[in-house]
Amino acid sequence: MNFELVKKEVIKFTKDRDWDQFHTPENLAKSISIEAGELLECFQWSPEYDEQAAKEEIADVMNYCILLADKMGISIEDAIMEKIQQNNKKYPIDKSYGSSKKYNKL
Amino acid sequence: MNFELVKKEVIKFTKDRDWDQFHTPENLAKSISIEAGELLECFQWSPEYDEQAAKEEIADVMNYCILLADKMGISIEDAIMEKIQQNNKKYPIDKSYGSSKKYNKL
Amino acid sequence: MNFELVKKEVIKFTKDRDWDQFHTPENLAKSISIEAGELLECFQWSPEYDEQAAKEEIADVMNYCILLADKMGISIEDAIMEKIQQNNKKYPIDKSYGSSKKYNKL
Amino acid sequence: MNFELVKKEVIKFTKDRDWDQFHTPENLAKSISIEAGELLECFQWSPEYDEQAAKEEIADVMNYCILLADKMGISIEDAIMEKIQQNNKKYPIDKSYGSSKKYNKL
Repeated sequence: MNFELVKKEVIKFTKDRDWDQFHTPENLAKSISIEAGELLECFQWSPEYDEQAAKEEIADVMNYCILLADKMGISIEDAIMEKIQQNNKKYPIDKSYGSSKKYNKL
Repeated sequence: MNFELVKKEVIKFTKDRDWDQFHTPENLAKSISIEAGELLECFQWSPEYDEQAAKEEIADVMNYCILLADKMGISIEDAIMEKIQQNNKKYPIDKSYGSSKKYNKL
Repeated sequence: MNFELVKKEVIKFTKDRDWDQFHTPENLAKSISIEAGELLECFQWSPEYDEQAAKEEIADVMNYCILLADKMGISIEDAIMEKIQQNNKKYPIDKSYGSSKKYNKL
Repeated sequence: MNFELVKKEVIKFTKDRDWDQFHTPENLAKSISIEAGELLECFQWSPEYDEQAAKEEIADVMNYCILLADKMGISIEDAIMEKIQQNNKKYPIDKSYGSSKKYNKL
């Protein structure tokens, strides 16, 4: 399904329930952390994981990311592309190839 | 920009650096939590926040969500739509309208 | 060093800087999540980790736990002991021995 | 109750269930993040919170901090005291008094 439509559905779900009043940027940022913790729980004791559970938790993280971007009036797509540009400078291919080091330790 | 293209760029960035070897689902789930914590840091002491910083951190969270979905072989868009269907049942409009209660307390 | 003295030092550090005004329970809970993310970063790409870095991040997590317990007017020690009592019921030794399953799946 | 005894009880609980095998430093760091997310959930939509729930979640965070420190062979008390020394240098009273700015922005 098209991401534009997905974003509209996410926002409609919230509007239908009058939940916009709870969705301050701060509360949405908390919600992203909370859901990220639930996603991590799928991997708490082992790298093996329940695929359905993990899928649902990624959806929750993404759901709040969509709502936060909407609330901030920014485009998720542009935000990611801008970050890739930055990371291209921080992690030049020749220096970072095959390395998991952070940019300030390359 | 189109989300399909954004996803391709995210995956290309990783492939160009041979970082796929580090991107187990478990490590990506950890990375999502770590970046969610950095996003939350924008709101640590106040609801007011630096928009540019928050934008970059959302991008980081999304970046790892895209990589995890790719690694798991699932569609982010479908995962979100499926979760909306589930939430429609857990949070019927008449019961959840204007309430921030969790579904098990409605 | 004695934990009672450590707690006093943590609270004194904050009082000396008049930071109590920022330390609402909500902000402290955010801070614990943020620091837990930084601790997790020590293990982002590998189980091997920088011991000094990890030690400093545990200290940060604990620091905010001490401040939150103080702000809530509860005893950390009692809170842990009460939770152990609960967990003794949720995880009886004969059922949970050698298993990483959650209590609701035992 | 004395913190030394609390730590012993936490470690005994784990040993009694043969859970030590799951408690790698990495898994414990994940667990601290997961529990920190559950603590944050007490404050997801409002600064008002359920005291009993928050108390139990702090206990869970602390429980895993104790286990991680034990596994790493470090003293929690010393780790906190060392961090306070560091923070005394990063946040001199005259510069940081009444300010929530990070040390690199003071």
